[in-house]
Amino acid sequence: MPDLWQDAMDHAVSLARTAGTLVREAVQNDMKVMLKSSSVDLVTKTDQKVEKLILESVKEKFPTHSFIGEESVAAGEPCKLSDSPTWIVDPVDGTTNFVHGYPFVAVSIGFAVNKKLEFGVVYSCIEDKMYTARRGKGAFCNGQPLQVSDQKEINQSIIATEFGSDRHVEVVDKIFSSMRNILCLPVHGIRGVGSAAINMCLVASGCVEAYYEMGIHCWDIAAGVVIVEEAGGVLMDVDGGPLDLMSRRVIAANNKMIAERISEQIDACAPLRDDVVRKT
Amino acid sequence: MPDLWQDAMDHAVSLARTAGTLVREAVQNDMKVMLKSSSVDLVTKTDQKVEKLILESVKEKFPTHSFIGEESVAAGEPCKLSDSPTWIVDPVDGTTNFVHGYPFVAVSIGFAVNKKLEFGVVYSCIEDKMYTARRGKGAFCNGQPLQVSDQKEINQSIIATEFGSDRHVEVVDKIFSSMRNILCLPVHGIRGVGSAAINMCLVASGCVEAYYEMGIHCWDIAAGVVIVEEAGGVLMDVDGGPLDLMSRRVIAANNKMIAERISEQIDACAPLRDDVVRKT
Repeated sequence: MPDLWQDAMDHAVSLARTAGTLVREAVQNDMKVMLKSSSVDLVTKTDQKVEKLILESVKEKFPTHSFIGEESVAAGEPCKLSDSPTWIVDPVDGTTNFVHGYPFVAVSIGFAVNKKLEFGVVYSCIEDKMYTARRGKGAFCNGQPLQVSDQKEINQSIIATEFGSDRHVEVVDKIFSSMRNILCLPVHGIRGVGSAAINMCLVASGCVEAYYEMGIHCWDIAAGVVIVEEAGGVLMDVDGGPLDLMSRRVIAANNKMIAERISEQIDACAPLRDDVVRKT
Repeated sequence: MPDLWQDAMDHAVSLARTAGTLVREAVQNDMKVMLKSSSVDLVTKTDQKVEKLILESVKEKFPTHSFIGEESVAAGEPCKLSDSPTWIVDPVDGTTNFVHGYPFVAVSIGFAVNKKLEFGVVYSCIEDKMYTARRGKGAFCNGQPLQVSDQKEINQSIIATEFGSDRHVEVVDKIFSSMRNILCLPVHGIRGVGSAAINMCLVASGCVEAYYEMGIHCWDIAAGVVIVEEAGGVLMDVDGGPLDLMSRRVIAANNKMIAERISEQIDACAPLRDDVVRKT
């Protein structure tokens, strides 16, 4: 049977590379000639430009497909997953990194049909690493197959996570208590590159055993979900139940044991869901 | 006036590259064919092999020089800075990263004369980035000049730090309370690549405004100190006083204002000094 969505996936890879090249040039060229203090405007401009490029290209080539993108949602478009083929796009994942020239910035493109993720493309554009995965066909980085870590012991593991951008005291409380519980299991270490999409690719690559975060959005993780699963990993909600793409919480791990050990230590918070209609 | 120590610095760069190639090959080749669970032995073997290579080469070329190296100190050699020209070496900085194949592992070579650091070489060997600085002559990465960030506002800054490897409750308390104070200043974000030497090079590169840590050793930071200073940055003890290389505490920042804002937030601990004679 021919692969129904291969054409869309090929297009996603090509778009991610074009978009990532724009992002990389903005970081490496434009950032150099400006004060750090003006770089917030550059990221906003780049974010919008890159999402427009991807959105217009998708609409032209696949006019019946739906689209969920960070900037479109920010501009008031709905963030609702239907059964229709849907592109779920973060044009610049790791915007804080972008602003500072910290070298982990990604273009993330996930694709779902009947609410099931079919492929994921994450282009870590400063490292020039193209991560791809098609449901049932494995995960790759620059064409090399990816495999999660074989580690079964939590105390031999590295865990990736982030502090996030919410500074409300009740959220910070839960972020810190979760992190401390996990550190003191103990684990080998806690890392975090500042991009959810790249953190998930590090799980798929076997460099870290797991990644968890609360407060992320569907466009940060949609592509990474397929990449982790196709590298042999598992996804879970932070409460131990099945992953809900719109719940803004995720555990991605090399295996179920490690995922469950982490879930047990998390002091969960419940951010406002992505698919809740916001009054603007 | 000819530069007295240029010859030693050239040798350090050459040694760092040779050593880093060994480390990179161990991570990329040997790690691939072993279970993650056996990788702790590999790092120990590589650490010792690389330090021996550097030590023997220094002893042959500069027989009168002194040497402080992580593995030599672990084997009972003294860790005391004299006025004699002294090589201060960490053969593998980021050993936890090494074990996991997390791509930030460095060879770090600092060099002091009359207790003053004269040059620093940090080779981030998986990224293939060679950071070098000679006192008074600027800092470079792969030959390109480095400059710290011009950011003056702490709330527009990214700060690098690490959780460290000490899991004693009183140390973990201070690590977490410091981190939380800093996060809630607020800052843009907290990062950490898992290598003190590379974190310092990120300050020098302007990707992060500052890095601080308690629990590090003199060989983790000696090279980085020169690289940060020559890129225009400042060094400080976590209590706001001058840096003491043997105190196992450091703040490296783009400017004095940012360093002081961080120092004010740190709940300091006092690890056993590097130059205390340990009974083994």
